[in-house]
Amino acid sequence: MSEVRAVGAAVDPDGDPDERRLAWVYLSRVVQGPCAPLSALIASVGVCEAARAVRERELPTALRGPTAARREMDSAAADVDAIERLGGRVITPDDDEWPSWRMLGLDQLDTERDREAAVPLVLWARGPLSLHTASERAVAVVGSRCSSGYGLQVASEIACDLAGRGWTIVSGAAFGIDAAAHRAALAVGGATVAVLACGVDRPYPAQHDRLLAAIADSGLVVSEYPPGISAQKHQFLARNRLIATLGDGVLVVEAGLRSGARNTVKWARRLGRPAMAVPGPVGSASSAGCHRMIRDGEAVLVTRADDVVDEAGPLRLPVTDGNPAEPGADLRGAEAEIYAALPVIGSRLPRELSQQSGLDLATVRAVLPSLELAQLVGCDSDGWFRTSRRQAS
Amino acid sequence: MSEVRAVGAAVDPDGDPDERRLAWVYLSRVVQGPCAPLSALIASVGVCEAARAVRERELPTALRGPTAARREMDSAAADVDAIERLGGRVITPDDDEWPSWRMLGLDQLDTERDREAAVPLVLWARGPLSLHTASERAVAVVGSRCSSGYGLQVASEIACDLAGRGWTIVSGAAFGIDAAAHRAALAVGGATVAVLACGVDRPYPAQHDRLLAAIADSGLVVSEYPPGISAQKHQFLARNRLIATLGDGVLVVEAGLRSGARNTVKWARRLGRPAMAVPGPVGSASSAGCHRMIRDGEAVLVTRADDVVDEAGPLRLPVTDGNPAEPGADLRGAEAEIYAALPVIGSRLPRELSQQSGLDLATVRAVLPSLELAQLVGCDSDGWFRTSRRQAS
Repeated sequence: MSEVRAVGAAVDPDGDPDERRLAWVYLSRVVQGPCAPLSALIASVGVCEAARAVRERELPTALRGPTAARREMDSAAADVDAIERLGGRVITPDDDEWPSWRMLGLDQLDTERDREAAVPLVLWARGPLSLHTASERAVAVVGSRCSSGYGLQVASEIACDLAGRGWTIVSGAAFGIDAAAHRAALAVGGATVAVLACGVDRPYPAQHDRLLAAIADSGLVVSEYPPGISAQKHQFLARNRLIATLGDGVLVVEAGLRSGARNTVKWARRLGRPAMAVPGPVGSASSAGCHRMIRDGEAVLVTRADDVVDEAGPLRLPVTDGNPAEPGADLRGAEAEIYAALPVIGSRLPRELSQQSGLDLATVRAVLPSLELAQLVGCDSDGWFRTSRRQAS
Repeated sequence: MSEVRAVGAAVDPDGDPDERRLAWVYLSRVVQGPCAPLSALIASVGVCEAARAVRERELPTALRGPTAARREMDSAAADVDAIERLGGRVITPDDDEWPSWRMLGLDQLDTERDREAAVPLVLWARGPLSLHTASERAVAVVGSRCSSGYGLQVASEIACDLAGRGWTIVSGAAFGIDAAAHRAALAVGGATVAVLACGVDRPYPAQHDRLLAAIADSGLVVSEYPPGISAQKHQFLARNRLIATLGDGVLVVEAGLRSGARNTVKWARRLGRPAMAVPGPVGSASSAGCHRMIRDGEAVLVTRADDVVDEAGPLRLPVTDGNPAEPGADLRGAEAEIYAALPVIGSRLPRELSQQSGLDLATVRAVLPSLELAQLVGCDSDGWFRTSRRQAS
């Protein structure tokens, strides 16, 4: 991770490490969850200055609301003590363990449209695994809480197989598919990460306290919510984005038509991660969501671990800093401008590329095919993308 | 069908109706199955003259081999008598019952590369249904001979539902899925067409003689092979092309990895018909071919009759003769040339459009997006196509 700037952190640290850590923790407690305007402020002025501004209410309008309720409650030192007493830790963007390259995806989402699309401020964690190492080769396995015996069996088989090959299983510790995936990884001594929508001191669901303890024993339980925070409905949606963020892809084993797993898939697609779904008998309500996603092109059909590796395996985010073989480096003129207007992750429509590059639409449409011939860009139903995102590093 | 030229027939009839009928039947017996060079000769000189040329061996080289063995055996009059004694008939491209518009797809395939891609010379038929009417709104339902109980149930349910809504079920009368689909249509008093790889006087498989009799009783049993011909392996592949030809789409309910149903799907894709597949439990070998086709984008996942209607329903082949609202009629210059280079059915790559139109590749690539903006063309993994093929007429 040394080659990549820590996403979420300002380029020039604006305080000593301890001061910065307390600033991150303070802000995490104040906003409790993703807050794009705060992330923007931190990126602009640094975390210590942002903490001071929040305390003293010297804030842009967008931040006054989200910080009003708890800005006077500075329990940062006590929070750090508390998580350490639990055998846990707080992971900030300053830490080596912070998976910066994973967060690149989140960093490029449109946070003006969606405040929850922000990079988390910190992650509260329990467990011996390094988050950076654990998320290096990881797949999110999620699905219905009301899973069938078929779904539990398939989730267990695929998760076992992936964990046995060194893939980390990321999930949400819920009933049904989530729990089957975690247990399968634990059973073969594999790595597994549970991402919670509440504080890591809270076993949720309560019936999974032993499962969560086992995950904290050999894997990792993480949350962006400070200890003591209970699970609220909107927090599950933000949690799903972290599950999608931490994996190379999202696999849905069973999902009803209204399953939360479809929300996780939506995040995966926004982040440019492959979304996969397992089919089942057509009469089974717990496969209806999977079938719908496959039919609508939202997820690729997979039936076994090999398929998952095929989909998620080749995804490597490009490290562009000073890389002499950076794709597109030898482009000139309109080609260079249009290539530069394409995000590292995700896709753009020709119209958007025209707006961003300032070139007219006809030029954009004429140039894209030549970039495609040069194998620098590709096109799918979401628009045009850099092919480098799919090349092995 | 009166608006559409009968595909396979010469524009100007070259003999009286009886003479032409005997010529078609004679040629059908000589080549026994699709024969692109013979179809080309008929299109060029008319069927009576083609029959004379075959009899007298005044033939292009490509036709000498295929006609050598049986050209001296002229049993046409006896063949017509025989099929009529069976209560059947021979349907030629001259007959109102000939589904010309269905054959348009076959007519546009590359017969130089694949001799079997030809339009059939005649169809031998038994049953009260008009082939033209029966194929007006029809779906091919095919699948594994070694089907599971699950597959039989799903095939029955979907075929029942489609037949009940007035869709004709086209299939191959084989064991397993085929038979379940025919039976389901018969059970609800719906229309069903069995396409055989042998003469219509031969029950194949023999165990289905009662099923075939029931189909001939209320539906239609058809074959391009004359009476008396037994089923040979290569004839099944040619038969699969007819199954795909006669429907608005092909639905595969269960298929192993090496199932013949994948061959039918290949034909559907070549013909520009939607290919659909039903998923099943991931551990079931009889769903493995369906899963593979869905995963590889060869077939769309469907779970019920509604999905099939969504996929197959909107497909209407455009009738272009003298239609004042013909799409693309107001195009000029390169746009008009590129639009004209696109086939009515099927797709072309920009390279192929460049070759066909004589315009350079850069121009083709620059013009296609503007045609797309005008909603005249679309693009998928097979290349560019006219959107008119998907508009309801």
